[in-house]
Amino acid sequence: ANLPPAKTGHVASQDEKREFMSLFPDIVRDLTEVGSLSDIPDAQKWYAKVLQYNAVGGKMNRGLAVSLSFKIIASPELIKPETIREAHLLGWCIELLQSFFLIADDIIDGSDMRRGKPSWHCHENLGLSAFNDAILIEAGIYKLLHKHFRNAPYYMDMLDLFHEMTMNTALGQALDLLSCPAGQRPNLSKFTMERYNSIVKYKTAFYSFYLPIALSMYMAGIRNTDNVRVAGITDRELHRQARTILVEMGQFFQVQDDYLDCFGDSSVTGKIGTDIGKGKCTWLSVVALQRASPSQRAVMEKHYGIPEQSSIDTIKALYKELGLRATYRAYEDSTSSMIRTHIQQISRGLNHNVFFNFLDKIHKRSR
Amino acid sequence: ANLPPAKTGHVASQDEKREFMSLFPDIVRDLTEVGSLSDIPDAQKWYAKVLQYNAVGGKMNRGLAVSLSFKIIASPELIKPETIREAHLLGWCIELLQSFFLIADDIIDGSDMRRGKPSWHCHENLGLSAFNDAILIEAGIYKLLHKHFRNAPYYMDMLDLFHEMTMNTALGQALDLLSCPAGQRPNLSKFTMERYNSIVKYKTAFYSFYLPIALSMYMAGIRNTDNVRVAGITDRELHRQARTILVEMGQFFQVQDDYLDCFGDSSVTGKIGTDIGKGKCTWLSVVALQRASPSQRAVMEKHYGIPEQSSIDTIKALYKELGLRATYRAYEDSTSSMIRTHIQQISRGLNHNVFFNFLDKIHKRSR
Ligand SMILES: [Mg+2]
Ligand SMILES: [Mg+2]
Ligand SMILES: [Mg+2]
Ligand SMILES: [Mg+2]
Ligand SMILES: [Mg+2]
Ligand SMILES: [Mg+2]
Repeated sequence: ANLPPAKTGHVASQDEKREFMSLFPDIVRDLTEVGSLSDIPDAQKWYAKVLQYNAVGGKMNRGLAVSLSFKIIASPELIKPETIREAHLLGWCIELLQSFFLIADDIIDGSDMRRGKPSWHCHENLGLSAFNDAILIEAGIYKLLHKHFRNAPYYMDMLDLFHEMTMNTALGQALDLLSCPAGQRPNLSKFTMERYNSIVKYKTAFYSFYLPIALSMYMAGIRNTDNVRVAGITDRELHRQARTILVEMGQFFQVQDDYLDCFGDSSVTGKIGTDIGKGKCTWLSVVALQRASPSQRAVMEKHYGIPEQSSIDTIKALYKELGLRATYRAYEDSTSSMIRTHIQQISRGLNHNVFFNFLDKIHKRSR
Repeated sequence: ANLPPAKTGHVASQDEKREFMSLFPDIVRDLTEVGSLSDIPDAQKWYAKVLQYNAVGGKMNRGLAVSLSFKIIASPELIKPETIREAHLLGWCIELLQSFFLIADDIIDGSDMRRGKPSWHCHENLGLSAFNDAILIEAGIYKLLHKHFRNAPYYMDMLDLFHEMTMNTALGQALDLLSCPAGQRPNLSKFTMERYNSIVKYKTAFYSFYLPIALSMYMAGIRNTDNVRVAGITDRELHRQARTILVEMGQFFQVQDDYLDCFGDSSVTGKIGTDIGKGKCTWLSVVALQRASPSQRAVMEKHYGIPEQSSIDTIKALYKELGLRATYRAYEDSTSSMIRTHIQQISRGLNHNVFFNFLDKIHKRSR
């Protein structure tokens, strides 16, 4: 029991995950309980099936981050079994938001695998009606929040935040899709690092990184107000601080995701890359264009965004020729240490471990 | 100026519609204003385009119903330009909810036309990324509500109501889709009038009929509380009363929609029917099965849900043979007068005109 943290770290995290997972049956029951919907039992049965297939699996870092962060920042008297359970509930709401977006993203991107099994729209030939199941899952978030938090002082803040994060993610997805509009060749002149950073900030960083920590802050009583907590710094400012760091981390995370889409091991990532064939504005494509000679740029113009395997192979060969794997390794190290520095520069604000814990989860990840 | 109401009715309604429409540019501006999203101008431009194509058009009965009802039920001192404008804003939120569901529904049902023009996913070969635009539109509802109502005493009630209505609609859509699961023949043994009524209650009636009136009630100060307003009747009970009548009206409306899908004039409805080819559980199919001889049932078993034109023609011929057009006319008259009776039976409650006005809008409609 007195082992140093480094040794117990992994075990503690497994325990957390088990505790988190143990709430899932209650989530399904809350969302599919008969009660007022007793006249449509088939829809309720279907909903349970949708949740079981889609809401569980993956790394669950987003969902777990709420309670982990809450335990670090809340005052000790707030930390008790009921509040931990509430933090887990909020974590599940984020996992639902994630699975809402993943179902839609996989249909739109034409991705057939997710978390090592067929994507929902490929499961039992479900097809496009999978969209409606995504809507059901999103609606579940608000049913859970209403059931468990409607009397909490931060209920309205939480609703507003979920709405804002949803809007941001959809705007990011829209930008992502605009980089290669339907029936057109990708517009490579728009593939700049600046644009890339905007896309990933909106489509990934807000909901994956800022959302869990912001929710834990609400639970700890830190809301978007001018209340002064730490020397001279308002709660609103604490949120702004966290947001800045967490958006950086989210962008880092998405660069990794882009790298793994091309160079990752499908048996580890559980999904099959589609970025090159779909002509996505990815970190790899942006860096490739920054470094390409005119003739290499011509290869990009000709083959990028063509779904045929031969074109995809040509692009992958170009990426290797440009040394992008080494560039990525260097980027990973330098970005990770830059983020560490930014965290340490917070002299008055949240406990640094909120950020370090999250960063440790994603550094050098292979899935 | 002193013409009797029957003569001014139409003109007044055109004025209302013009006033309602005149708010649309503000809606687009609210949703796409640069401000905090100045770093993603392309996404904002795209969003404006999505709204312009999808949010306008159609009959707009849902959107207009909020202000019409508000003017009937609110106490005179509440009725002023600012509150009428707020009622219109809420009306636009319902129109956004509608267009969110229509975009998704048209993708899922494979419907290529809507409101006399190509469905959004068919426009400029947009394809499946249209679904992300549906998500953007839904997120717009909450951005508008936050901007204009976050300080209203009924803000939380309204959010909860939009969430509940969204969940109900998605559950209804799930049931609708389950009547003919992907890659399977429709399960005609499940095509009962009871099941049909449940499907349409959830997929149509709540958001199209109860939602606008409930919002006008919130604005008028009638919330889900035990406050007693009329002799011995609580505000909660007023909502229950309205809900019961409005769900009946919504079911009536959906029967009409099903009839028009098969027998309507595309140049009037602005859409092309897909119900027979998709094997939907419709009012026509349920009544047909109730009346079918064993051999006619065999025709249904063989041809219903087959998208080939010859099968569709066979089913339409069967519907005619079974006299379903006359049955529908009789149903329309008897249901309309039954609903009128139910409205008149409300002795203590909302002004009957709230319901009569809405009913008048849909009786004998051809689009
Ligand atoms: Mg994808
Ligand atoms: Mg994508
Ligand atoms: Mg990816
Ligand atoms: Mg349809
Ligand atoms: Mg449909
Ligand atoms: Mg229809």
